[in-house]
Amino acid sequence: MWAGRVGCRRGSAGQGDPTDTAERQEGPAPAMEGRQCYDLLVIGGGSGGLACAKEAAQLGKKVAVLDYVEPSPRGTRWGLGGTCVNVGCIPKKLMHQAALLGVMIRDAPHYGWGVAQAPHDWATMADAVQNHVKSLNWGHRVQLQDRKVKYFNVKASFVNTHTLCGVSKGGEETLLSAEHIVIATGGRPRYPTHIEGALEYGITSDDLFWLKESPGKTLVVGASYVALECAGLLTGLGLDTTLMIRSVPLRAFDQQMASLVIEHMAGHGTRVLQGCAPERVEKLPGRQLRVTWVDLASDRKDAGTFDTVLWAIGRVPETASLNLEKAGVRMNPVTGKILVDAQEATSIPHIYAIGDVAEGRPELTPTAIMAGRLLAQRLSGQTTDLMDYNNVPTTVFTPLEYGCVGLSEEAAVARHGEEHVEVYHAFYKPLEFTVPQRDASQCYIKMVCLREPPQLVLGLHFLGPNAGEVTQGFALGIKCGASYQQVMRTVGIHPTCAEEVAKLRISKRSGLDPTVTGC
Amino acid sequence: MWAGRVGCRRGSAGQGDPTDTAERQEGPAPAMEGRQCYDLLVIGGGSGGLACAKEAAQLGKKVAVLDYVEPSPRGTRWGLGGTCVNVGCIPKKLMHQAALLGVMIRDAPHYGWGVAQAPHDWATMADAVQNHVKSLNWGHRVQLQDRKVKYFNVKASFVNTHTLCGVSKGGEETLLSAEHIVIATGGRPRYPTHIEGALEYGITSDDLFWLKESPGKTLVVGASYVALECAGLLTGLGLDTTLMIRSVPLRAFDQQMASLVIEHMAGHGTRVLQGCAPERVEKLPGRQLRVTWVDLASDRKDAGTFDTVLWAIGRVPETASLNLEKAGVRMNPVTGKILVDAQEATSIPHIYAIGDVAEGRPELTPTAIMAGRLLAQRLSGQTTDLMDYNNVPTTVFTPLEYGCVGLSEEAAVARHGEEHVEVYHAFYKPLEFTVPQRDASQCYIKMVCLREPPQLVLGLHFLGPNAGEVTQGFALGIKCGASYQQVMRTVGIHPTCAEEVAKLRISKRSGLDPTVTGC
Repeated sequence: MWAGRVGCRRGSAGQGDPTDTAERQEGPAPAMEGRQCYDLLVIGGGSGGLACAKEAAQLGKKVAVLDYVEPSPRGTRWGLGGTCVNVGCIPKKLMHQAALLGVMIRDAPHYGWGVAQAPHDWATMADAVQNHVKSLNWGHRVQLQDRKVKYFNVKASFVNTHTLCGVSKGGEETLLSAEHIVIATGGRPRYPTHIEGALEYGITSDDLFWLKESPGKTLVVGASYVALECAGLLTGLGLDTTLMIRSVPLRAFDQQMASLVIEHMAGHGTRVLQGCAPERVEKLPGRQLRVTWVDLASDRKDAGTFDTVLWAIGRVPETASLNLEKAGVRMNPVTGKILVDAQEATSIPHIYAIGDVAEGRPELTPTAIMAGRLLAQRLSGQTTDLMDYNNVPTTVFTPLEYGCVGLSEEAAVARHGEEHVEVYHAFYKPLEFTVPQRDASQCYIKMVCLREPPQLVLGLHFLGPNAGEVTQGFALGIKCGASYQQVMRTVGIHPTCAEEVAKLRISKRSGLDPTVTGC
Repeated sequence: MWAGRVGCRRGSAGQGDPTDTAERQEGPAPAMEGRQCYDLLVIGGGSGGLACAKEAAQLGKKVAVLDYVEPSPRGTRWGLGGTCVNVGCIPKKLMHQAALLGVMIRDAPHYGWGVAQAPHDWATMADAVQNHVKSLNWGHRVQLQDRKVKYFNVKASFVNTHTLCGVSKGGEETLLSAEHIVIATGGRPRYPTHIEGALEYGITSDDLFWLKESPGKTLVVGASYVALECAGLLTGLGLDTTLMIRSVPLRAFDQQMASLVIEHMAGHGTRVLQGCAPERVEKLPGRQLRVTWVDLASDRKDAGTFDTVLWAIGRVPETASLNLEKAGVRMNPVTGKILVDAQEATSIPHIYAIGDVAEGRPELTPTAIMAGRLLAQRLSGQTTDLMDYNNVPTTVFTPLEYGCVGLSEEAAVARHGEEHVEVYHAFYKPLEFTVPQRDASQCYIKMVCLREPPQLVLGLHFLGPNAGEVTQGFALGIKCGASYQQVMRTVGIHPTCAEEVAKLRISKRSGLDPTVTGC
């Protein structure tokens, strides 16, 4: 807790420890006397870091944000705002929307619109998306300025527990000290460096959204939501897209829902190769790439030719260049993430970590923002409230969107025992699907409840159009301790998909057909 | 409460009271001995009536539904399912979807889709919509059969408190008796019969959705949500549309929201004439209609030529032919609606009224369904729960949709006093609007709360895309007694419009700019 603004404490100066980046100019540590003093230093200008910095500044603190985007192996670089703004939620959702529009255009003639559809033009879309992202970069700069948060475009590393050394692109060093330091550096896509050609020829989501030209025929490798979203939107844009999954898709999610998501993708144009692992990427004469993979069940090898190979096999926390040892900040040696407690404090009490870089936190923008804001409020003595990481809703923006909040069916059964869990479910047909006779086979909802009255709702899983819009309000309900009975007594809004949640009358246990019929 | 199935009681036979329809063959009342006996008779095969009948049958009761659709003055007729299925929610939402697709098609080039848009073809859309409605008619028939509910396509009138006379289209009479009778006849659009030419030349929503050909240039008269929805979808389909409002649009709704809805319509192609009242409709040589109206403020007369005049000035409860006096069922003489208590019972304890025909009930399908189902459960001794008519959510499907639940700002202030009400609000921009640079001036959310902590949420008002999907879950939250604090501690789903609700930090009282900036 801050007891007001404090002077920087002098720590033991680092002896010119080089960071592990090639760009840093090595040499003796700059004199500690030249350091700038702040109440709070935030490393990382992404969702969590910016939210924390702005909130602290608004509460009267002297704050600086240190942000530096290491270009991707393909050379892609971007501005302030972190993953979400630049290479995550924002461009992803816009390209997802572009893909959805492709479906709408195919629906349109059934609704009376005579439209002639030409192939999708990637460059037009990418230009529009990238321009929007750049406007957000600019907006973040302006917001920091407005709130009097100092922004340093430097790569930060710890000199001691209160001091950071920031190195600019040009190699200039700045020493910055603060009473409190927040690490919010997030993560970056992982490359399967053991696979020959992976790093040389592959791209990741860090590059995809900044491509000027269409990726063409694409192999997406991975089982994460990033993999599924990218494969889904590329398919939707009309590209020949293959999704290669080694084992379990959407591992952290309800597995019945994950299966339906994959089933929908496979039924709507994505070539899905499950149980396969890539072994080698070679460049063919010309632009194309030849990928060799193995079917793990049969041990059979296969190969294909693609224009683009996109790795979406997970993310690595951005800690390598932070010099955390200098400050004594402990990490999980397996995940590389920073260990934190309920206060978001690391092993060093005045150093915090929020967002994707922190161990055990959901890798989601809104949780990082809320955690960052609450942290700033606690540091300013405004509250003692801790971030509640339970019942965090999220949505996977696959072609058929999957929104969820609370426990998966598996987790509920594991926690409470099968005999204490009641699952209500329904296959439903969105009204808008009827006229164009769109297939609704995977439009499915399930609500996981305790079996004992009043049947507390443990989790909600919604697969269908606008899943994010549908799920958000139910997350409030679950936060308020909604019971199944209360859901059933909530009047529906007709005709919507969301009302189907309030009509979930068939339990899995009953064995009855959960298909919604009629109006 | 049923004490099991009872035999029909013999009431005093009616002396051949003619109903007020021309189709009924007059003559002496049929012998009471020939009557068929049921546990429950439901008059009206709409949402409420069907739900009540099916639920009672499922609980083991012997049930019959009497449904008869009087053709509209234009001669439009339809099948089983009531207003919602045939001339309300379902065709309305599908045509609204058609209109939204028009916007999507205009968005598409910005997202990289080369599309050439032809004018909208009404006949194609109408055919698809009408086919879907017919399939629902059929589905309802099948459902009744499956549940062993007897269906009579007859016009019902009371003979005595336990007996109905049903008259078929051909004039055949059937006498039906039951221990309990539910009136669920709904309502029909009102014609302004005092206006010369209104009945002869105008249509209503009973006709619009069944037109085979485009209505062309249309004048929609009315301020109800039906008026706004019809004018909105016609505009969206590319028709030259004028909306004429005498006084206050969406009177029962939050008036700030209503103004924004109108502002959006006026800014997106609907010609809105406020403070005007039609005086005369004349048929011109050829197809067109000449409408004369008066501007009420200036008393200035004006006139215009239209292909279609659509009256959407309110609805009349369907009670005229029920012969309610015979049973002693009391009505509100002003509204013509049937007076009911919390049990849905009329002035005659074993005769009930649900849905639009009952005084003081929201005219909404889901409330009628829930009320009907609960009534059947109470009659069968399954529950003593009453329908809760508080915090019923609804959505107006105008081009920019308006979803709401709970109190309007006006109602909250009236009930609690301005000093006890805190309103949080935001103008926001849906992410999908950015790329096509769609105007988001009216995308607005407000949450009406008690001012005293924990600031119970009294009402939520959401204006934006997918408002119905967004609002549904929040209705559960409000049902669970959500406070403003709980809303603020609900993690958002990014990027959605719904997450803006969980980010409403600016109070009206603060006077701060409620425009959401940045990501």
